Amino acid sequence: MSATKSKAVCLVSGGMDSAVTLAIALGEYDVYALHVMYGQRTQERELQSFRDLIAYYGIENSMIISMDYLERIGASALTDKSIEVPSKESPMGVIPITYVPFRNAQLLSVAVAWAEAIGASKVFIGAVEEDSSGYPDCREVFFKAFNLAVKEGTRPESKIEIVTPVLHMKKSEIVKKGIELKVPFELTWSCYKNSDKPCGECESCVLRLRAFKDAGFDDPIENP
Amino acid sequence: MSATKSKAVCLVSGGMDSAVTLAIALGEYDVYALHVMYGQRTQERELQSFRDLIAYYGIENSMIISMDYLERIGASALTDKSIEVPSKESPMGVIPITYVPFRNAQLLSVAVAWAEAIGASKVFIGAVEEDSSGYPDCREVFFKAFNLAVKEGTRPESKIEIVTPVLHMKKSEIVKKGIELKVPFELTWSCYKNSDKPCGECESCVLRLRAFKDAGFDDPIENP
Repeated sequence: MSATKSKAVCLVSGGMDSAVTLAIALGEYDVYALHVMYGQRTQERELQSFRDLIAYYGIENSMIISMDYLERIGASALTDKSIEVPSKESPMGVIPITYVPFRNAQLLSVAVAWAEAIGASKVFIGAVEEDSSGYPDCREVFFKAFNLAVKEGTRPESKIEIVTPVLHMKKSEIVKKGIELKVPFELTWSCYKNSDKPCGECESCVLRLRAFKDAGFDDPIENP
Repeated sequence: MSATKSKAVCLVSGGMDSAVTLAIALGEYDVYALHVMYGQRTQERELQSFRDLIAYYGIENSMIISMDYLERIGASALTDKSIEVPSKESPMGVIPITYVPFRNAQLLSVAVAWAEAIGASKVFIGAVEEDSSGYPDCREVFFKAFNLAVKEGTRPESKIEIVTPVLHMKKSEIVKKGIELKVPFELTWSCYKNSDKPCGECESCVLRLRAFKDAGFDDPIENP
């Protein structure tokens, strides 16, 4: 929190990828942490993880916002409770029903707005491309295009850039990086379905379980 | 509202440009009208204009959402009541303090999400580039970049496009187009400052007054 560090906004969902991204950002920047609730099933649990991470790192500047309208828009198993969360991985090349329409554009837009208001030059997001669910808004081509929209849609002196430090990492590499950076994985939450004990079956649980297994570490949150 | 028309989402602020854009969209599409409140000074008055326009056109599908966090982010005279709305036009080439950080990206992101959820192929927005305040997110270069982000960040089958029918019109041409399309300008609202009677001095009033004068029509809302 040194005065010589420049500012960055970091999106922190409370999951393992954003926790590692946060740790990376904190190594270099004065981090303004942003959490977005969007009516997803486990939003209270994720909010708790966010608060725990903020407290753990002693982050002074944070903001929690609600995009409840993403629940009204629906069209995703995460935000529409009438659509069941699949209990297995989606087949290769198929965008799963847990995709929330254009969600990352909403998250990035508000993060960029905050960055511009406070004079931050970077916006960190913990998106993962290859070793993930195949959401279109988690791909490098999307972030490249969005970065251009940021450049053209903000004040010319703002010079804000979206940064995606874990985008091309395997999930097991993200775990290793987190262990190296002493990320408190016990405070994070990944399950799409449950808020007490991870279901172990949804795609997010499957990816997390495999990540810790492949990395050779035990996941500190209790799993089935 | 014919079943043969394809769907489009139209952002409707309640101002003259979005009202004309709405009339243009209605000529070809089954319009889903979207209004966003973002803590701007005249948000209740603008909401009333939105409701009046929806009722006037008999639009069946509409959504009103609140991005109150843009007020918390502030950094604009429209959303931060401690910053005064300037009572004259901004000099050429200077982005005025009424610019709301990256606002149009937020509006477009939610409009695109809704479009993807309902299967709409177009998102209309009534932005004006040359004959306007010089906001960076009202320029064609921004919309081009954002369209690419939409292409890359949504499902490949969604094929959603941002459409800006009045972007390169002079404000007086927008008035003429509106008169031709019988747009009920008496229902619209443009003043940044007041909600009862337009101040006649803010940039939005100045641009509107000049637009009607240059077009050779009387503005049906009472002006100072």
